[in-house]
Amino acid sequence: MMQTPLTMPQMIKRAEKFFPKKQVISRTSKGIQRFTYKEIALRTRKLADSLQKLGVKRGDKVGTLAWNHHRHLEAYFAIPCSGAVLHTINIRLSPHHISFIINHAEDKVLLIDSDLVPLIEKVQAELKTVQAYIIMTDEKELPETTLSPVYHYEKLLLDADANYEYPDDLDENAPAGMCYTSATTGNPKGVVYSHRGIVLHSMALGLSDTTGVSEKDIAMPVVPMFHVNAWGLPFAAVWFGTTLVMPGPYFTPKLLAELIEQEKVTITAGVPTIWLGLLKELDEGNYDMSSLRAVLCGGAAAPKGMISAFEQKHGIPFMHAYGMTETSPIVVISTLKSYQEELSYEEKLDLKAKQGILVPGLEMKVVGQNGEVKRDGKEMGELAVRGPWIASEYYKDEWTNEAFRDGWLYTGDVVTIDEEGFVKIVDRTKDLIKSGGEWISSVDLENALMAHEAVFEAAVVAVPHERWQERPVACVVLKDAFKGKTAKEELYNYLQPQFAKWWLPDDIIFLEEIPKTSVGKFLKRELREQVQKIICKKIK
Amino acid sequence: MMQTPLTMPQMIKRAEKFFPKKQVISRTSKGIQRFTYKEIALRTRKLADSLQKLGVKRGDKVGTLAWNHHRHLEAYFAIPCSGAVLHTINIRLSPHHISFIINHAEDKVLLIDSDLVPLIEKVQAELKTVQAYIIMTDEKELPETTLSPVYHYEKLLLDADANYEYPDDLDENAPAGMCYTSATTGNPKGVVYSHRGIVLHSMALGLSDTTGVSEKDIAMPVVPMFHVNAWGLPFAAVWFGTTLVMPGPYFTPKLLAELIEQEKVTITAGVPTIWLGLLKELDEGNYDMSSLRAVLCGGAAAPKGMISAFEQKHGIPFMHAYGMTETSPIVVISTLKSYQEELSYEEKLDLKAKQGILVPGLEMKVVGQNGEVKRDGKEMGELAVRGPWIASEYYKDEWTNEAFRDGWLYTGDVVTIDEEGFVKIVDRTKDLIKSGGEWISSVDLENALMAHEAVFEAAVVAVPHERWQERPVACVVLKDAFKGKTAKEELYNYLQPQFAKWWLPDDIIFLEEIPKTSVGKFLKRELREQVQKIICKKIK
Repeated sequence: MMQTPLTMPQMIKRAEKFFPKKQVISRTSKGIQRFTYKEIALRTRKLADSLQKLGVKRGDKVGTLAWNHHRHLEAYFAIPCSGAVLHTINIRLSPHHISFIINHAEDKVLLIDSDLVPLIEKVQAELKTVQAYIIMTDEKELPETTLSPVYHYEKLLLDADANYEYPDDLDENAPAGMCYTSATTGNPKGVVYSHRGIVLHSMALGLSDTTGVSEKDIAMPVVPMFHVNAWGLPFAAVWFGTTLVMPGPYFTPKLLAELIEQEKVTITAGVPTIWLGLLKELDEGNYDMSSLRAVLCGGAAAPKGMISAFEQKHGIPFMHAYGMTETSPIVVISTLKSYQEELSYEEKLDLKAKQGILVPGLEMKVVGQNGEVKRDGKEMGELAVRGPWIASEYYKDEWTNEAFRDGWLYTGDVVTIDEEGFVKIVDRTKDLIKSGGEWISSVDLENALMAHEAVFEAAVVAVPHERWQERPVACVVLKDAFKGKTAKEELYNYLQPQFAKWWLPDDIIFLEEIPKTSVGKFLKRELREQVQKIICKKIK
Repeated sequence: MMQTPLTMPQMIKRAEKFFPKKQVISRTSKGIQRFTYKEIALRTRKLADSLQKLGVKRGDKVGTLAWNHHRHLEAYFAIPCSGAVLHTINIRLSPHHISFIINHAEDKVLLIDSDLVPLIEKVQAELKTVQAYIIMTDEKELPETTLSPVYHYEKLLLDADANYEYPDDLDENAPAGMCYTSATTGNPKGVVYSHRGIVLHSMALGLSDTTGVSEKDIAMPVVPMFHVNAWGLPFAAVWFGTTLVMPGPYFTPKLLAELIEQEKVTITAGVPTIWLGLLKELDEGNYDMSSLRAVLCGGAAAPKGMISAFEQKHGIPFMHAYGMTETSPIVVISTLKSYQEELSYEEKLDLKAKQGILVPGLEMKVVGQNGEVKRDGKEMGELAVRGPWIASEYYKDEWTNEAFRDGWLYTGDVVTIDEEGFVKIVDRTKDLIKSGGEWISSVDLENALMAHEAVFEAAVVAVPHERWQERPVACVVLKDAFKGKTAKEELYNYLQPQFAKWWLPDDIIFLEEIPKTSVGKFLKRELREQVQKIICKKIK
């Protein structure tokens, strides 16, 4: 067979050659803008040319601080296709972490949304490697800024060569992208994505048995493009000629519902908090969601109640999946097997509430205290994965590499696997509660609580206990309509039939909000501290 | 990213781990037999173990002479997954060619269907490298045979180790399979498939935008497993946990129709002659074909009349594709773009009669006399392709390697490409008719003729001409009901409005049969000789 490499230029060239009429619909400060792939492909070539002219060379890192829009999409291809490395920066990191990762990655050029310029101005003095700032703006002129040297994205494109040719000698193992995990402790850790990894991951997203991204789709990645490449959706979508809807900055649930309705979105992707917000909007408003074939949900476990609300109440198919920054991200996805389609909805819901089965192309194992666990849906173990779109190390950060052992990535996620191979995330290894030598899953308790009609969100954390080492305490945010009307006792009565007595939380605390990480996951560390204070107060 | 190789053991292991309950339905001499993937995976491990015990080592070739059934499927995985090379031998080749390719490939072991044993007995004396013959039979004892040493497939499995472990250090570029093209001139040429090529090609078959092979499918490869790996379907099907229906030896159109109806087949694949036969059966019989979502057709151009008969008359979606032994085989496939779905059926039919657009993962160009041709659906050129599942050479056959130039495979197929990127096969470079310096497409004339209600098959060949160098002559097989009732004039009247005058064949000859290659393609070389004789006779 030919030794043609799995590199990214083929992806955008396919859109350019075969789907020039298809569209990218981008919400910017000027409202909805529409571009054909012909235009996007041309602008991408121009951006690649501009970057070369600014001195970007093979292997140089180019950072982006940007929302989900067409310019960010252009950067997604112009940077790696020209041989440089796309470094998407999480805009929700602290200024300290932002400057840390820009210096650590050694970004040479930064592409910044105009509204995010203040984020960089704040840390500009600390940046050691950046030689040029490009501002992505809808305005004709640059905003006032202390950044220097600074360029206007559109003006650069005006002067650029539309006939720029991507190099044809890229190595498939060369770096194409990188993303830092939003660590809850220590400095963020960088993951480098290769061309090969991105091509294969995109192919996996196109499989009928996974997300089946297709030319016929109208895909809206709500998950930010600074979060694991928006789960790889933009790469796959461009390759397959899929219509893309980019929701832009500062969207609301209302805006998402409107975009889905107006643009006839068929597949959208995001974290559970986004979908909780959308559900609320759908419950209150009157929207036509009939175009949706899949709401893809990952980043954290989707509560059963949410899944059934989407599917049963609103008729919207829900697709639960699991992955992480280190895994590009897709690892498992809850597409049911043919014979499972014949189960009752309740039984199907039990499966859909799991994260699903391994996608083709990867290998996995679940390692418990005594080797691989039984496939009984009960025994817990840490999920380990390997495959061509799984990271093999953290970028220049050897001391954190203990996650990578014997050729496997140990995910730090505790899971069960059932007879059918469905994986269920039980907890983070760090978040498991060890009571009297036995494990209690905080996620199981949370999901049970969130299935209660009065509960908007619930998080369960461990508190130290003299006799049992640790005990669970639940923190609950009630829905507006139930605030002040739902008592602790009601929730206890609700939980009791579902769990062993010793699993029941020692306390249920009502909060106004659960603290979250920059990507919408529960910030358990902070929550534990809050709970600790509340309990201390009570004791006093 | 991890350097985990793209090798085949992961494919069958996925079926074994995640789809053990799914089935392979195999038609054998004993009738329909059903095996679970658990059983198939176990038997595959045992076969791999047996081959090791017979002395098969890494890189050794193991030949198969077999129909489409479960044992052949086991060989499809046991051989490459254990590090050897699966050499599928076309049973329809001449004895001379069969002994040639076994010697050329240096097959160490042969797996042979019991009814095909005589084929090998005939050439046994010429075989230089074969050290063991394994007979695949449903009987308890071996048939009488002169082959030696000879083994009984099932008895070998009885003694084999079910815990055999596939090696975990296979190189993704190592050979996994090989297949010789059924050349119409000279000796057959060998194509070697790598593990990487097979894995990537299987992934391409799983994409929603191509054949979308899925766990939910019930797939029946009618195309023989000795013909480009049954187009790669068995590999993809096992990987994705697809139910497989193997039609076995000597099937009739009636049997295929019954299998589709009884087993609720969703996708089936074969060459146009197979589908012409099935159509006839459907026209005459009364079958429920509602389970079918796709009849995949390749190997030769599908006539428009046949496509519309399947779709309009029988409500069966038809999927036209193109590939060749050298391309694993999928290259282009006629899945319509979303906005093309809104066209009238006539317009859609025009597109479906083309072979379609390039699948993700490959690159193509159409090279005419002055470089790449215009994308106008008219200008003709030779199709050249490259990519990770395209052969880079013929096996140990350097003098035929002129097809491989500058990193591209020149397919020898003359095509047009339209504005939308749809490729249409116009002819083989060798079969184009050059009349007065202009090209006439034999395939266009054939398709037009085959769209006539009276025509069962039609083939057009060039005959030498004093003034015009070459002129087309059509050979037509009439449907039984029209024999003796349809005159040459009627066909001329039918063709006239569709073609320029100089394209019309100089003669239309009625034949009882069109000679075909072992894989069902028109054997134009032989037809030209027949036509020559008929014309000479007429002149006398």
